[in-house]
Amino acid sequence: MAPILETINGPEDLKKLGGRELVQLAEELRQEIIATCAANGGHLAPSLGVVELTLALHRVFSSPQDKIVWDVGHQAYAHKLLTGRRERFRTLRTLGGISGFPKRAESVHDAFDVGHSSTSISAALGFAVGRDLRKGNNKVIAVIGDGSMTGGIAYEGLNHAGHLNKDLVVILNDNEMSIAENVGALSKFLSRTITSEFVHKIKKDVEGFLEGLDGLGRNVLQVAKRAEESLKGLFTPGMLFEAFGFEYIGPIDGHDVELLQETLERVKRFDDAVLIHVLTKKGKGYRPAEENPSLFHGVGPFEIATGKIIKGKGGAASYTGIFGETIKKIAAEDDKVCAITAAMPDGTGLTPFAKEFPARFFDVGIAEQHGVTFAAGLAAEGYKPVFAVYSSFLQRAYDQVFHDVCLQNLPVVFAIDRAGVVGSDGPTHHGVFDLSYLRSLPNLTIMAPKDENELQHMLQTAIDLGSPVAVRYPRGNGYGVPLDQKFHSLPIGRGEVVREGKDGVIIALGTMVVPALEAAELLAGEGIGMAVVNARFVKPLDRELILSLADRNCPLFTVEENALQGGFGSAVLELLADEGYADLAVARLGFPDQFIEQGEQPELRGRYGLDPEGIAAAVRKKMHV
Amino acid sequence: MAPILETINGPEDLKKLGGRELVQLAEELRQEIIATCAANGGHLAPSLGVVELTLALHRVFSSPQDKIVWDVGHQAYAHKLLTGRRERFRTLRTLGGISGFPKRAESVHDAFDVGHSSTSISAALGFAVGRDLRKGNNKVIAVIGDGSMTGGIAYEGLNHAGHLNKDLVVILNDNEMSIAENVGALSKFLSRTITSEFVHKIKKDVEGFLEGLDGLGRNVLQVAKRAEESLKGLFTPGMLFEAFGFEYIGPIDGHDVELLQETLERVKRFDDAVLIHVLTKKGKGYRPAEENPSLFHGVGPFEIATGKIIKGKGGAASYTGIFGETIKKIAAEDDKVCAITAAMPDGTGLTPFAKEFPARFFDVGIAEQHGVTFAAGLAAEGYKPVFAVYSSFLQRAYDQVFHDVCLQNLPVVFAIDRAGVVGSDGPTHHGVFDLSYLRSLPNLTIMAPKDENELQHMLQTAIDLGSPVAVRYPRGNGYGVPLDQKFHSLPIGRGEVVREGKDGVIIALGTMVVPALEAAELLAGEGIGMAVVNARFVKPLDRELILSLADRNCPLFTVEENALQGGFGSAVLELLADEGYADLAVARLGFPDQFIEQGEQPELRGRYGLDPEGIAAAVRKKMHV
Repeated sequence: MAPILETINGPEDLKKLGGRELVQLAEELRQEIIATCAANGGHLAPSLGVVELTLALHRVFSSPQDKIVWDVGHQAYAHKLLTGRRERFRTLRTLGGISGFPKRAESVHDAFDVGHSSTSISAALGFAVGRDLRKGNNKVIAVIGDGSMTGGIAYEGLNHAGHLNKDLVVILNDNEMSIAENVGALSKFLSRTITSEFVHKIKKDVEGFLEGLDGLGRNVLQVAKRAEESLKGLFTPGMLFEAFGFEYIGPIDGHDVELLQETLERVKRFDDAVLIHVLTKKGKGYRPAEENPSLFHGVGPFEIATGKIIKGKGGAASYTGIFGETIKKIAAEDDKVCAITAAMPDGTGLTPFAKEFPARFFDVGIAEQHGVTFAAGLAAEGYKPVFAVYSSFLQRAYDQVFHDVCLQNLPVVFAIDRAGVVGSDGPTHHGVFDLSYLRSLPNLTIMAPKDENELQHMLQTAIDLGSPVAVRYPRGNGYGVPLDQKFHSLPIGRGEVVREGKDGVIIALGTMVVPALEAAELLAGEGIGMAVVNARFVKPLDRELILSLADRNCPLFTVEENALQGGFGSAVLELLADEGYADLAVARLGFPDQFIEQGEQPELRGRYGLDPEGIAAAVRKKMHV
Repeated sequence: MAPILETINGPEDLKKLGGRELVQLAEELRQEIIATCAANGGHLAPSLGVVELTLALHRVFSSPQDKIVWDVGHQAYAHKLLTGRRERFRTLRTLGGISGFPKRAESVHDAFDVGHSSTSISAALGFAVGRDLRKGNNKVIAVIGDGSMTGGIAYEGLNHAGHLNKDLVVILNDNEMSIAENVGALSKFLSRTITSEFVHKIKKDVEGFLEGLDGLGRNVLQVAKRAEESLKGLFTPGMLFEAFGFEYIGPIDGHDVELLQETLERVKRFDDAVLIHVLTKKGKGYRPAEENPSLFHGVGPFEIATGKIIKGKGGAASYTGIFGETIKKIAAEDDKVCAITAAMPDGTGLTPFAKEFPARFFDVGIAEQHGVTFAAGLAAEGYKPVFAVYSSFLQRAYDQVFHDVCLQNLPVVFAIDRAGVVGSDGPTHHGVFDLSYLRSLPNLTIMAPKDENELQHMLQTAIDLGSPVAVRYPRGNGYGVPLDQKFHSLPIGRGEVVREGKDGVIIALGTMVVPALEAAELLAGEGIGMAVVNARFVKPLDRELILSLADRNCPLFTVEENALQGGFGSAVLELLADEGYADLAVARLGFPDQFIEQGEQPELRGRYGLDPEGIAAAVRKKMHV
């Protein structure tokens, strides 16, 4: 048959297709998704898993009148291809290109922006309530994975939605695995297999229960209790969701597009809250992804024929890798050290630790709030927990950092990966706010290493400190500097002058130290002598050092990979103001007051003046050169 | 009998008592709790509800080896009285006195600090895991209310705890009501009454199911589905918690101390995760509290004999009340306005709105995350949701403010009550970080009114704006200023000079405007002429006004009821630095980098220099007068 995908300019074009054409279209969608991810990287496995579901949704429902809310949104590639973004799809995740996640600004078919997990039921309920208030009759559909179901807000949404019992469809996309192996009682429970032995057992249990009933029949509570005992095994996922006030349908095969359509057609006629339990396979239709869905969950460029990941320029180890190795080494020396992740053992570099110290490793599911409070409990019990988490995901546990860790001054270490811009995942994933939201919390020490060797020592410092600490470091490779084999604690609140110069001072933080040095080198060639400081600590600041630099009475520059509002530079301004430094020119470099778009890290840093050229330009400008 | 409570200096003293003595002790505990709350205010009803449970816990378990983790902690008064704090108990919630919540710093019997809801299972799991790592054999007990169970982190904790199946006891203190009427499917479900009709229905359903089984027996999936259909009514709370991997015991009478002890003794011998479902009555033993548990949840001083609340000095309406009336009036004019609370319709002043516009009012339970994302969904559907929430509780939804509201630039209004110090509830409840954690979020407008009349106009401004807005205002009464009957939008990002003076400028925010004016009055008497500005906006700042003030070249002072790190004053410093103002003395007044203790609001403001005398003193100091 002739290619079909190129004839699809919107969901309405889908509705004309016959069954065989649909099968072909599914195949074409997969090819396009695979080709684009192979070139640009992307969330391949999740998107391959829902191709049939996406087709069925857009055939049965009418977007944009009907609202489809994708949870996390990394599975929405087929949706994008079918809703008018086919031609731009090859720009996926690039600067100025199509986002890897649904985005209202990009299409009317993207009902709600996403990127973080577990929000879809809450948002969909908002759409459903709004529809009823305006007496509309469109449908609202949330599509949520079993991994996302481990996030507390999903449960909060389910609880409220069941209570309101609005016309609302929740599709539980159960692929028995989120990013890593799924965690928790819920998962075990969803995967309860229904076998004929199981049915036989039920029958026996129920018969026993009925006998008891006949012989007893008096004490109601006793009877109810016996019923429970007898029928424990009977409990099914359906009953769980029914208990929350949802009609339950399923489980059904998520790759049978006919069955999906029939089911959705049926559900379309309902007018209360329904949950459809759909079983899908991550990576479906691409062998390497089916075999290794964790690797192909979010993947960089790869060879289509073999599934071989195309290595970057290589060389230096990643910060993530160095973190993982360091914390493993520290844990070998100190049996109080534990490590916690919220469903990202690979992403955070904790897999080697997990293998070496399984008893001290905890994957809590997509449950950052619980992860932090669980860590606080461990710390109160005398342990030294390290919660490894992406900067933008720690946002989900801000109150727990405040209430359970800092307020109690408990020694929890936050290993904050992906601080700064992260690249193609874009604004939901950039870690450019952590300094601003953490810096006001009393008792918290905040550090950022200038390179991967310093990261090692900072982690040792954090473990040794005995109070709350955050260490932030970026996505990507280090510089390949020599790695010390023995780690030591750094003096708390002490920075270091890494280059001298008498015309001005650049106080750089973390990832900005090396670019600042390069900028100083550029400027030196122009006769401008800039000193460069590796600040190391955002909190406490190196008061003595910074004031001594201020006393030089030459311009000060702060450089950080964080929002300028309330970040490191602001901390320096606060110090200087509090100390009465009234006649000092200070310029702060960092991200402006806007969400930062997607793009490669160097592109983004360059665009916002956080590379050597940008820093040098800012210095020249301030110095009126 | 002789008084018993005065002989109890620790839990060990409890273990010697007989049954009749226990009953008397329960009565004495109630009297002491009632007397103290009548004098100081406090969380009366929750603490009265768990007197017997507290006695049973301390008789059966051995604190501090065994860890008792109280959720929220407002029910821990009996626990405090029994664990060595009897003599200081009358200082409850006062400056320098006993905290209204468990505090590790106060007693070894307080295993974990609390104040916010739903953390106990996570913390207890941390204790249990730590115990097992060190091969200890103590018990860990979390006590959590049914209201707290609506918080997502409780579910995250339950899910992880069920998965690990540690030796852990969770006591579900089911009083069928949290602060307000409990919300959600879970609540409906927990309160499912077990009647003989219910048992009869089960019997019939089960028989029908068995007949079907015999006639069919082929298709396993079909059978399982039919089982579900037949047995829906059989589903009990026990089965829910069993599904999460917990042994379930209950429901049992939470005021029968003998039964409680027997049950706990039995559970003590288990070594896996158990949930005990205990039914209690809020306010138990004090008629006015039993009859009005919502009023007596957290209550100010009252007359013991009558339960009549002792009114404060009275006069001016509270900010909370003005908010409630204003939003009701605005909603009468604009049918797109909706209001949302997380289990605090009374506390946030939304009760009148709820009565007038029940279809546009939503109590989402103790579920701030869901509340914010639900609001975002409503906004995406074209509505104007107002989420009314305490400053310290909005911390629990920081990522949702970022991800679901600001990133999508959706018109959600955050009505942030209890901003600044709140008084006796202390550090968990003070709202002194919101400016710091919100200010870095792009697209967000942030305001604070100088008085209750301005609050009205700011709410109108927020509703009119069409993008994310936060309006922060304090706990307590306004000034009794005349209230305009017609509301208007204020110009965005514009402050106002409220007093002229040529020696210096005080830029005051919100609650600090009136004290700044009084300070200026004091200083005028000493010959120092201070201008005072009502900043109104934290974001966007009134750039033009502030720069024109800076051009006066006299000292600038910023005053705010927020942490100094990253707050309003820092925003002013940032502006001045960015604009190249290099020779200006700026002093910032606000809360220092520490957690602020409990105490009356005026005491605390005075202690940190945020009253007229304090502001005047800071001005004198800076001006070297």
